[in-house]
Amino acid sequence: MTEKNRKGCLIVAGLGPGSPDLMAPRARKALEEAEVVLGYSTYVDLVRDCLNPESEILSSAMMQEIDRCRKALDLAEAGRRVVLVCGGDPGIYAMAGLVFELAAQKGEGCAVPIEVIPGIAALNACAAVLGAPLMHDFAAVSLSDLMTPWDLIERRLEAAALADFVLVLYNPKSKRRTGQIARAREILLAHRSGTTPVGIVSAASRAHESLHLATLETMLAEEIGMQTTVIIGNSQTFIHAGRMITPRGYSGKYGL
Amino acid sequence: MTEKNRKGCLIVAGLGPGSPDLMAPRARKALEEAEVVLGYSTYVDLVRDCLNPESEILSSAMMQEIDRCRKALDLAEAGRRVVLVCGGDPGIYAMAGLVFELAAQKGEGCAVPIEVIPGIAALNACAAVLGAPLMHDFAAVSLSDLMTPWDLIERRLEAAALADFVLVLYNPKSKRRTGQIARAREILLAHRSGTTPVGIVSAASRAHESLHLATLETMLAEEIGMQTTVIIGNSQTFIHAGRMITPRGYSGKYGL
Repeated sequence: MTEKNRKGCLIVAGLGPGSPDLMAPRARKALEEAEVVLGYSTYVDLVRDCLNPESEILSSAMMQEIDRCRKALDLAEAGRRVVLVCGGDPGIYAMAGLVFELAAQKGEGCAVPIEVIPGIAALNACAAVLGAPLMHDFAAVSLSDLMTPWDLIERRLEAAALADFVLVLYNPKSKRRTGQIARAREILLAHRSGTTPVGIVSAASRAHESLHLATLETMLAEEIGMQTTVIIGNSQTFIHAGRMITPRGYSGKYGL
Repeated sequence: MTEKNRKGCLIVAGLGPGSPDLMAPRARKALEEAEVVLGYSTYVDLVRDCLNPESEILSSAMMQEIDRCRKALDLAEAGRRVVLVCGGDPGIYAMAGLVFELAAQKGEGCAVPIEVIPGIAALNACAAVLGAPLMHDFAAVSLSDLMTPWDLIERRLEAAALADFVLVLYNPKSKRRTGQIARAREILLAHRSGTTPVGIVSAASRAHESLHLATLETMLAEEIGMQTTVIIGNSQTFIHAGRMITPRGYSGKYGL
């Protein structure tokens, strides 16, 4: 056991979108060397194959993020080498922020080294399967109003629509939240054509990946759920041969 | 040689931010199996170790993107298994879009299969080394006005500032473009406090990585160049123990 191990540390590791060959080797190595692995059970199950058989595994249900992150910090403070796993990228709508917030609350006494291993986020993976929708300026907005006032979310949607950003919508819908995606579409339609391409991707890179190309007009007819990411094109985005493409501007500048 | 090889295909592969252990295994495998590898020389040099010695390597200078993408398509059409490499994620300010645009121009006759392998983009990697600045809604804006009218860029900066988005600035400055970052800061300062945290990261994950935490007030004193990504916090972003953290809202909702 090295000096670093004895001191304890917390690594917040991104697993990428789900396919093992899209997880960074740095995350895999962290998992192999972990003394304790914590995570939402779905993500822990994704990486069981690369866990050290001697690691302690603490998987938990969704919606227990605060307990999980606090536990991860406590174990690291107690001298363990801890890896907290997140789907996608820990830094985009995942656990990295909460870990640092809880560490900040513990104050100067919390001297645990915290490392974030970035991952391929849903927005990266969904864009790749759609073609190239994020090739120009874009905004990412979560439609979950569980912790963010809906007014602020609407203000962001409005701003992104007005300034012709490509828009990536996270958490578009859940069993209890069904109206937000319809309202988001209304806001976009006030500024953008009904024929604007919309890409709807669920479970990118996993066995049950699904992928639909729609338009602002038709998008609500597609199945949208908890695991779905919705990408709405800007005024220049087009569909060609089944791919969603936002031009960067080469054509206007160089005539291609 | 498989049927797929004989038909030719074009894979646009993201190498991630530069450290080999942040490149997805899917990209590595594509490089190992490539018959031809094309890319900007800096990126080709990053992955020389994992190239097949029998692969043909066509590296070229920056600013020759159109020629490079056209060549890649032509070679794939001629039946070769071609990999075009990009730093970061091919889908974020990189080559995926141009490839699809050029393929679209060739029209229905261009039946080359095109695959995009996503990568850890600069925004993912820079966020990870800074802490967790992108934990809430964010916008990515390139300050390069080479192919985008400056008016539109200003409009996007203004919209992002108004709606309290965290802001990721790509291409903040080059030898010839030095005023844009100063103007962007002015726009942000009209809506956000001078004490707003700003993270300035160059060459994330590479040997010469540099990392500075500043504020909107002080940011122009830091070295900002071609390889720099600038992340400007929202109204809630704070610095603690040298990390830049944007809270998601757990504290307000659950009192932590």
